[in-house]
Amino acid sequence: MLHDETRLRLPVRPNDLDALGHVNNAVVLEYLEAGRWAWLAAHGIDPDHRVIAVVARAEIDYRAEIPRGEIELRTRLDAPGPAELEDADLVYRARFDQRLYLPGSTEPAAEAKITVAFLDAELRCLVTLHDFLASAKEPVR
Amino acid sequence: MLHDETRLRLPVRPNDLDALGHVNNAVVLEYLEAGRWAWLAAHGIDPDHRVIAVVARAEIDYRAEIPRGEIELRTRLDAPGPAELEDADLVYRARFDQRLYLPGSTEPAAEAKITVAFLDAELRCLVTLHDFLASAKEPVR
Amino acid sequence: MLHDETRLRLPVRPNDLDALGHVNNAVVLEYLEAGRWAWLAAHGIDPDHRVIAVVARAEIDYRAEIPRGEIELRTRLDAPGPAELEDADLVYRARFDQRLYLPGSTEPAAEAKITVAFLDAELRCLVTLHDFLASAKEPVR
Amino acid sequence: MLHDETRLRLPVRPNDLDALGHVNNAVVLEYLEAGRWAWLAAHGIDPDHRVIAVVARAEIDYRAEIPRGEIELRTRLDAPGPAELEDADLVYRARFDQRLYLPGSTEPAAEAKITVAFLDAELRCLVTLHDFLASAKEPVR
Repeated sequence: MLHDETRLRLPVRPNDLDALGHVNNAVVLEYLEAGRWAWLAAHGIDPDHRVIAVVARAEIDYRAEIPRGEIELRTRLDAPGPAELEDADLVYRARFDQRLYLPGSTEPAAEAKITVAFLDAELRCLVTLHDFLASAKEPVR
Repeated sequence: MLHDETRLRLPVRPNDLDALGHVNNAVVLEYLEAGRWAWLAAHGIDPDHRVIAVVARAEIDYRAEIPRGEIELRTRLDAPGPAELEDADLVYRARFDQRLYLPGSTEPAAEAKITVAFLDAELRCLVTLHDFLASAKEPVR
Repeated sequence: MLHDETRLRLPVRPNDLDALGHVNNAVVLEYLEAGRWAWLAAHGIDPDHRVIAVVARAEIDYRAEIPRGEIELRTRLDAPGPAELEDADLVYRARFDQRLYLPGSTEPAAEAKITVAFLDAELRCLVTLHDFLASAKEPVR
Repeated sequence: MLHDETRLRLPVRPNDLDALGHVNNAVVLEYLEAGRWAWLAAHGIDPDHRVIAVVARAEIDYRAEIPRGEIELRTRLDAPGPAELEDADLVYRARFDQRLYLPGSTEPAAEAKITVAFLDAELRCLVTLHDFLASAKEPVR
């Protein structure tokens, strides 16, 4: 179930455009983060808990200009895979596969691999995916 | 000379921080872009010409939290190398190596490889590094 | 018809939050601009023409914290009024009344009066509302 | 001493520019917030304490386009005045006068009046200027 793809439509905001009139490359990472929040929500994970996911590595290929209008983000957990998930207490990182589509297009305008680590916000130390998932079931801070 | 490293100090702005109180991962790409502008300026290249550099691919490793304060960006042209530059009319992409340092630290808090392509803003087509450098010598638009 | 209120729902994006976990005061102006774009679109005015509306003055009252979730913007042309619109060739400014609501709330979380002037982007001079509306009927640049 | 003006120079970042090539109106509020942080720092007030200043009202006049380059912010406490400060335990709001200058210009490109209220981040209630100043002397959270 953690491997289901989620989809999120987002409007482009005027400030997202740069001096060339298309969405700036940094803003694409803001969209990706919104997509991962939507993924968390769809999987019943509240981002406000003690253990949080922080971005450790990002790889983005920008394939087409993103104009004013609307975009769709498709977010999928890439690693660990279903088999590795059984050992979530050994897993310190997760990688998301994210694609950004323009309306009516079948090819992504941007593709990204985003690797997150899990940080215990109080202890300020890295913890496992298992700790992250367990924390998400606790009452909200 | 195009292979000299440039350095830029930037203040962290309040809005750069996210709900965790450190610089958000998307904002790091804004810093990187400011670093490339400084690199262009140091090499006498005005970004306002007809041929512009657009980001085609970004790879960023986030190694440490970036707190409020100041950061230093070090930007270096990674490819093409000095030898390949002689054939700039065959080169359609350039890659920058960029590192972000916190004050007093010898290890980068973030490291990035940013690949740019060259876009003729009027013709809306990709052109060569040679075209980009030639455009930069024309009178500003 | 220019005095009809338009409504726009927008998702709060993760980067909109500041270190306190609520939407930063500067981001509210990004939402307001998105609301004015939606107003322009609803009234058949394309923002990509030669004459553009630039913000000359902003007044915003922040009445409640804006948390993660969704917001609704209500945008209305406040001045010139219907009578004054007949002399649009004498009018150099327009003022919008904008209110931001949280879901399920009857009181706005923020209220704003935004005054815009009309700039001929080529001549770089201020022009009238009439010029702005006339420009919007020309073919897109 | 709380009424001394502070000055902060800030570089314009590429992402601060909008599709017209000048600094977007929302970004000016980010600059203003950076200016208030610098004011706090100059007066020995750490923004990381339990009582925080939140923007309650903003009035900004945009007088000139802000191009790429550098800006200077001048920030001054406008109210309460020196006499009223003696009753800081009755004062629930403060107003800052902020001006943004372009290099070499004697006229501000933007002028703002920013009113802040003081929020106890734990109790989530509004407190006085006196509480804010007292909190700032406590050890950092």
